[in-house]
Amino acid sequence: MDIEELGEFGLIERLERIVTNAMPNNPSNSKNAKLLLGIGDDAAAWSLDKNIELFTTDTMVENIHFSPATSTWEDVGWKALAANISDIAAMGGVPLYAAITLGLPPSTQVESMDDLYKGILECGIKYNTMIIGGDMVSSPITFITIGLTGIASGAFLSRSTAKTGDRIAVTGSLGTSSAGLKMISEKLEVDARDSQAMKQSHLRPQPRVQEGQMLLELGVKTAMDVSDGLVDDLGKLCRASKKSAIVWANSIPIEPTVQRVFPNQAISLALGGGEDYELLFTASETIIDKIKARLCIKVSIIGEILEDGLGKVTVVDKDNSPLDLTDTGWDHFKS
Amino acid sequence: MDIEELGEFGLIERLERIVTNAMPNNPSNSKNAKLLLGIGDDAAAWSLDKNIELFTTDTMVENIHFSPATSTWEDVGWKALAANISDIAAMGGVPLYAAITLGLPPSTQVESMDDLYKGILECGIKYNTMIIGGDMVSSPITFITIGLTGIASGAFLSRSTAKTGDRIAVTGSLGTSSAGLKMISEKLEVDARDSQAMKQSHLRPQPRVQEGQMLLELGVKTAMDVSDGLVDDLGKLCRASKKSAIVWANSIPIEPTVQRVFPNQAISLALGGGEDYELLFTASETIIDKIKARLCIKVSIIGEILEDGLGKVTVVDKDNSPLDLTDTGWDHFKS
Repeated sequence: MDIEELGEFGLIERLERIVTNAMPNNPSNSKNAKLLLGIGDDAAAWSLDKNIELFTTDTMVENIHFSPATSTWEDVGWKALAANISDIAAMGGVPLYAAITLGLPPSTQVESMDDLYKGILECGIKYNTMIIGGDMVSSPITFITIGLTGIASGAFLSRSTAKTGDRIAVTGSLGTSSAGLKMISEKLEVDARDSQAMKQSHLRPQPRVQEGQMLLELGVKTAMDVSDGLVDDLGKLCRASKKSAIVWANSIPIEPTVQRVFPNQAISLALGGGEDYELLFTASETIIDKIKARLCIKVSIIGEILEDGLGKVTVVDKDNSPLDLTDTGWDHFKS
Repeated sequence: MDIEELGEFGLIERLERIVTNAMPNNPSNSKNAKLLLGIGDDAAAWSLDKNIELFTTDTMVENIHFSPATSTWEDVGWKALAANISDIAAMGGVPLYAAITLGLPPSTQVESMDDLYKGILECGIKYNTMIIGGDMVSSPITFITIGLTGIASGAFLSRSTAKTGDRIAVTGSLGTSSAGLKMISEKLEVDARDSQAMKQSHLRPQPRVQEGQMLLELGVKTAMDVSDGLVDDLGKLCRASKKSAIVWANSIPIEPTVQRVFPNQAISLALGGGEDYELLFTASETIIDKIKARLCIKVSIIGEILEDGLGKVTVVDKDNSPLDLTDTGWDHFKS
């Protein structure tokens, strides 16, 4: 069977099972380290003496996750690091040390790599993340893998703790990044400020590090970042928690600009577009009210966690009729 | 300028300069973490409260670092993890948690990935390393990146601390792995046991984890693993230490089988072949004598560290005449 048939989620699940069956719970030479969270969340987590440490990794492949035709190398560098920082943010941690792996064709221009690093460093400086090493290999195609460590203070947010009746909430707006990608790749232009905002959302995502810490502090247990699209990511959260979810399409926060420029596509961009790097979380309405009062950015309740353990996500319109979800995110292998 | 012209070492140096100039010494939100060793060694190292933690990453790209024509997927998995563990061993640490990133074409067979993980897990179990997560992305070519954490007890081995007059030593034998690769790719067969030993050395390298810890314990400060070939790697050690080196060709440990099967190439395989994953280290003769008495594997003194700060490596024959080094390892980008 080839992996296209099985899909990314199927393959991850299969390999996770192989690992879990073969591995002891903790290696015998692990000193005082104890694994708290392994495969399947935004980051792995372990305790080492009194610290909780986090580790995540994320890869961008040329012409699949980025294209020099639509991004500068600086933007690619920013985004490669920001995507990893977003995973640490979704655990409620702070990012710490990053290692950069570059797969590069021999004809790569040195100046492009200078620019890539300029973008990585801008993001690193903004989010207090240090570049501490990496690897560089020859490759027929360009790819960038970043491994990032982080620290959590006493606890962390996971995907597997959603409870029946929890409200589902999201920071910021959804669909803006994929609207920006559409603007760029289809060479659309509207009012300059609007165009710029959408494009920046795609090219320079702002991971929600402070917000993730605040969620943890105010009692949230369950969160992830929206990287593959709301329906896809909420599905992962539901499967990890063995619950299902209902989402009220009307409550999904969409930027007025996105609504105006893409009146017929805004909802599908918001449901399936991905790369928004907002935080998707579940908690009681009381906790979410406290969060709304404390955060400087918008927080919207968009649905509810249901008892059903099958991991289903149902999106309903204002008449409570289920929407047909044709374009709900993208699986890395399935076409 | 394209990177082929600049070469891997040139590009790493350039990007390291860019990073060092732009980054503060330690990020402001780093809690109690303090970076001890950044870009340019086998692994990065930082202290966090009373622990010293290590991080390394290593990548294998299909048809550049491995080929399904000459390795099984199980062997590829073993080697991908072993190469990383070797970097932790060369710091004098123990490996701890590994994250596996796979770049995979959609036509990849699921069974191949089962086999890959089988090899990764065999290596992980042998060396007490846990698989804790990773990433999976679609890619036109197959690549495997592993990020590995480790712990060092109180101190670590680095490349930059060699002193004038230090003896240069190496564990085990050199050139066996590349002799094995030659056997496989040129479909050579000699006496079955000899063939098998050389091939295994290439396909299933055994990182020197216990030996690295022992070096540290017995007073060694300077070490690295031999992954790109003796001359190439010793050159890196010399440049990092701002020293030069003389190597006595006659003292280089080469397996009798390798000598017998490749009488005319054994020395160049040992000098430039790479992927032996032995430990290359420098120390006083007194310390090395103690090490020889304690380690179960062979330790050979092969040269001396010289004052000259240019990072030159000179290999001399038994008449003290310099050898012409035409094939001394391989730069990942230079052809």
